[in-house]
Amino acid sequence: MSEQLTLYTARVCPYAQRAEIALAEVGAKYTRFEIDLQNKPVWYAPQVNPASKVPAVAYGGPEVPPDQPSRDSVKIAESLVLLEFVADLHPGSPLLPKDPVQRAQVRFFIDAVSNKVPANWFAFMARGESPDALISGLETIQSLLPEGKKFAVGDEFTIADAAIAPFLTRIATTLGNDIGVYEEGQGKKVYETIWKSPKFAKLQKYYENLTERSSVRETYNEQLIKDTLGARFTPKRNA
Amino acid sequence: MSEQLTLYTARVCPYAQRAEIALAEVGAKYTRFEIDLQNKPVWYAPQVNPASKVPAVAYGGPEVPPDQPSRDSVKIAESLVLLEFVADLHPGSPLLPKDPVQRAQVRFFIDAVSNKVPANWFAFMARGESPDALISGLETIQSLLPEGKKFAVGDEFTIADAAIAPFLTRIATTLGNDIGVYEEGQGKKVYETIWKSPKFAKLQKYYENLTERSSVRETYNEQLIKDTLGARFTPKRNA
Ligand SMILES: N[C@@H](CCC(=O)N[C@@H](CS)C(=O)NCC(=O)O)C(=O)O
Ligand SMILES: N[C@@H](CCC(=O)N[C@@H](CS)C(=O)NCC(=O)O)C(=O)O
Repeated sequence: MSEQLTLYTARVCPYAQRAEIALAEVGAKYTRFEIDLQNKPVWYAPQVNPASKVPAVAYGGPEVPPDQPSRDSVKIAESLVLLEFVADLHPGSPLLPKDPVQRAQVRFFIDAVSNKVPANWFAFMARGESPDALISGLETIQSLLPEGKKFAVGDEFTIADAAIAPFLTRIATTLGNDIGVYEEGQGKKVYETIWKSPKFAKLQKYYENLTERSSVRETYNEQLIKDTLGARFTPKRNA
Repeated sequence: MSEQLTLYTARVCPYAQRAEIALAEVGAKYTRFEIDLQNKPVWYAPQVNPASKVPAVAYGGPEVPPDQPSRDSVKIAESLVLLEFVADLHPGSPLLPKDPVQRAQVRFFIDAVSNKVPANWFAFMARGESPDALISGLETIQSLLPEGKKFAVGDEFTIADAAIAPFLTRIATTLGNDIGVYEEGQGKKVYETIWKSPKFAKLQKYYENLTERSSVRETYNEQLIKDTLGARFTPKRNA
């Protein structure tokens, strides 16, 4: 990878963290530009991502200050597209296995994450719906984990792990700190179920392996998540 | 690709057609097994796809009758996972470009299809909701099409085209034949907007290119779609 790469990102955002993890895994040199989601720069949507979301990448073109993006760089959005992109830029890395079957397993895992994790977590935390969908979604995820291996499809860290890690960490942080619009204590109860009960032992071990990974640890700011999501959701409790 | 490949599929299903198109594009030799979705074989969910959906693939293992799947084949589900899988099995094919940026464009297009097409079509046809979301979804798709090229990301047919073609054909067939729970004539009106009005000229040309492609034509049975979806939705009109 010889072209310049600028990542537009936000510490708070789980989708953006996916891209940061993948870039950290391959040791990519890149320019990181933090977007304040509460106060997005006016140039961001027209010049970088029309959907006005993070993450997005500007790739190639001349070296420019990130707040003056060049027309000559290619702009790429969507976290899952970016995970594959980082793997494609580093075909030698273990981010995506070589074997077509294992690649399919990586992508099937990611598809399950997309369907089972973000929306179910949000429904519980932000709308106070039943936690059952989140719990059963994580059961499905656990059922996909291979026996006796460290990561989602084997002992190597892949983009499947990058896709789920930002959500598992945020789910642990919010439940463990009872952050959400649900009744007081309900988050901690669900936390106990997922992070302490024997039926989730495989997921717990997987979580440990993920959070020991430096690419995951160094791109996650737990205090920021506690503060931001705590301020956003907990005051609405019983509102 | 030397291993055996069995595709569990159903002519009626747009997701399954995606896999059939990709396999046709690479000229793969495979065993096609039609699943009757109204009367699924009892062995299908436990032995092939726990989600009990088509498409699914059994790959590798011994040559066996498809209704007696071997434990020794790998089972793979999810149409978009299968598109990438077929491309990975045929790394020399144009189904996925070599260039990381173009690959990202393919995947971004597919992501837009997933978000903008199936659910919006279904909401109009099956629930009689406003067609506006479908129309504006197709506008977004059209805006992604490159100027003066035949297909989604250039002049080569890729998995992006395989992902959308089964939906565009079914949308044309159902709207053109006024198949849906909406008021009589409304489907034809939306058909006129999308398939005749100048503002959709680029999409219309793209549709023509897709439907001229033999992989698309030969895996689509328009009469079957008319009959099946006509019987399912039109009698519920004004119900
Ligand atoms: N599907 C997108 C979702 C990205 C997303 O929703 N990002 C949020 C922050 S977590 C965002 O930028 N929202 C725009 C805003 O807050 O204005 C992806 O996977 O990249
Ligand atoms: N997300 C799946 C969707 C597949 C799907 O919904 N298939 C339908 C037919 S179009 C199915 O098999 N449904 C199960 C049934 O009808 O019982 C994919 O992309 O492959």
